Amino acid sequence: MQAIQFFNGKFVPKESITFSIDDVGVLRGFGIFDYFKVYNGAPAFMEAHLNRFESSALLLGMEIPFSRNEIETAIFKIIQHNEFPLSGVKVLMTGGASPDGFSAGKPNLVITNTAVSETNPSFYAEGVSLMTHQFTREMPQVKTTNYATAVRLEPIWKQKGHIDVLYHDGHYISEVSRSNVFLVEGNKLITNEEGVLPGITRMNVVNLAPQLGFVVEVRPIALSEVLAAQEVFITSTNKKVMPVVKIDDQEIADGKVGAKTKLLMEGYAKLLAEETKQPSFQN
Amino acid sequence: MQAIQFFNGKFVPKESITFSIDDVGVLRGFGIFDYFKVYNGAPAFMEAHLNRFESSALLLGMEIPFSRNEIETAIFKIIQHNEFPLSGVKVLMTGGASPDGFSAGKPNLVITNTAVSETNPSFYAEGVSLMTHQFTREMPQVKTTNYATAVRLEPIWKQKGHIDVLYHDGHYISEVSRSNVFLVEGNKLITNEEGVLPGITRMNVVNLAPQLGFVVEVRPIALSEVLAAQEVFITSTNKKVMPVVKIDDQEIADGKVGAKTKLLMEGYAKLLAEETKQPSFQN
Repeated sequence: MQAIQFFNGKFVPKESITFSIDDVGVLRGFGIFDYFKVYNGAPAFMEAHLNRFESSALLLGMEIPFSRNEIETAIFKIIQHNEFPLSGVKVLMTGGASPDGFSAGKPNLVITNTAVSETNPSFYAEGVSLMTHQFTREMPQVKTTNYATAVRLEPIWKQKGHIDVLYHDGHYISEVSRSNVFLVEGNKLITNEEGVLPGITRMNVVNLAPQLGFVVEVRPIALSEVLAAQEVFITSTNKKVMPVVKIDDQEIADGKVGAKTKLLMEGYAKLLAEETKQPSFQN
Repeated sequence: MQAIQFFNGKFVPKESITFSIDDVGVLRGFGIFDYFKVYNGAPAFMEAHLNRFESSALLLGMEIPFSRNEIETAIFKIIQHNEFPLSGVKVLMTGGASPDGFSAGKPNLVITNTAVSETNPSFYAEGVSLMTHQFTREMPQVKTTNYATAVRLEPIWKQKGHIDVLYHDGHYISEVSRSNVFLVEGNKLITNEEGVLPGITRMNVVNLAPQLGFVVEVRPIALSEVLAAQEVFITSTNKKVMPVVKIDDQEIADGKVGAKTKLLMEGYAKLLAEETKQPSFQN
C-alpha cells in the first residue's frame, strides 16, 4: 500500500509533491515548518507543535491557507492511512510562486508522514559529543527552513566524530543546530531562552523537572560554564533527552552519562508513554 | 515560440523544472545562485558572475555537477533560443534530495533565462529611499538562497514607501538586501568590504572610479556617516548605480540626486554598453 501525503488540499503520493523554480521557498529560503513524532498512530505533543507552526507563520507574516481543524484532520487521515509503527509528521509551508523572483506568493502547504527508525541506543547509553562553532542564528524563535550553516558544517562534525554542532557567540551559547541545551548543577537544571528556538521537548522537560526534584533556572549560559558543567544534555523531538559527554576535545566531567540526566531520560520516556498511550519506552 | 531553460543537463520549458520535497534546497535552505543581465544576446560580466558562483559553491562545500564550459555553452544556447531583448540569467544550485531530511544529496543545477523590464527611470531621476533594519547576514560572502529576513521585511518597507532595506549592526552598516553601498565625500568614494557580498557592479564601480577622478576608500562605514553623507548610492546587477536620497525619514544632503552619483551612473552605463556591445544606455 502506497503512503499518502497532504499537498495543498489533496492526498497524494510523495512523488507528486513538487515545488516550482518560482517558489520563494526554493529561490529565497522563505519557508517554515514543524515536526513531531507519531507512535502507533498517536501523535506526540501535536498541539504544541501546531501552536509553534502558527507562531512561526505569524512572525514571518505568512498566512496559513488551511484552518487548524483542516490541518489536524489531514494529519489524522494520513497517519491512519499510512499505519507506520513509528513515523514523523512534517508540516511545511513555503512562500509560494513569486511574481518577480523575490516577493512571496500564495503559500504552499505540505504535510508529510515518513517512517523513521529509533535513534541509535548507544547515544543514550554512552552519550554523544558536539563540535562548537561561533554563529548566531537568524530569527532563532521562528522555525524557518534556513539551516544552511548546519548543512554546510555536517560533513565537518561527522568527520570529527561529533553528532551535531553547538553554536555560541564567542561567549554565550545559543543552541545545538536542532536541539536545546541544559546543564545540571546539583538539583538545578539550567537552560537558556533568549536567541533559541522555543523547543517543545525543552518545554516538557522544564514542566517535568519539579516532579523529579529539580529547580529550573532560565538564564544566559556561557560556553565556559558548559565545559565545566557536572552534566550536560540536549533536547529535541528527534533526540528526546540526550546526554552530552564531550564537547570538541574536552570531556564533560568524567565523560560518562550522568545520573541526573538518566533520571530525566526516564522521566521524559514516561511522559511520552503517557502522551501517546504506549505501554513503555526505552531510550 | 516557447522559451527554454536548462535543468540538470536538459533543455526544457520552465514548467518542467521542479524540486522535490526531499531537496535540501526546499527543506533546509541549502542552495546558491548567481544572476546577470543579457542585452540583445550579450551577457554582461558573465565571467565574473560565474567566478562568484564557483566561489559560493566552494565555500558551502558543494560540487557543481557540470563544467564551466558546459554551463557557458548552456547559457548561450538558451539565450540564443529565447531571443529576449532584455533578460536575466539565473544559475541556481540546490543541495538535492536528502537521504534523511538534513544531509545534502546530489545537487540540482538550473539555469533560467527570463525576460525583464528596465528599472523604473524615476528611481534614477529622483533617487530612492531605504528603510534601515538591524540585522547581520549569515555567510554574507556567499550568494546563498537565504533571503528570509528580506522577504519578510518587503511588505513593511513597501508600505512605508521605501524600495529596499539597509542592514546595520547597531553601529556599522553592511549592505542593502541585494545591493552594495557607496558614499561620496569630495572626490572620495567610500565603500565597505567586510561582511558584505562581493558585488560585481561594486567591483566595476571601484575599477571605474579612477578614470572619473575618484579615489576609492575601502573601510567599515558607520550608519551615522551614511546619514550625514554628501551623496549615497547603491550598486547591483538589477539596480546598476542607483542614487539614494532618503533613509528612513531623513533626507541625504538636500534630498536630490547628487552630481557625482550622476557621473558614476553615466560612467557605468558606458561600461555596460562597451561590455555588451550595445550602442548606448540610458538609466
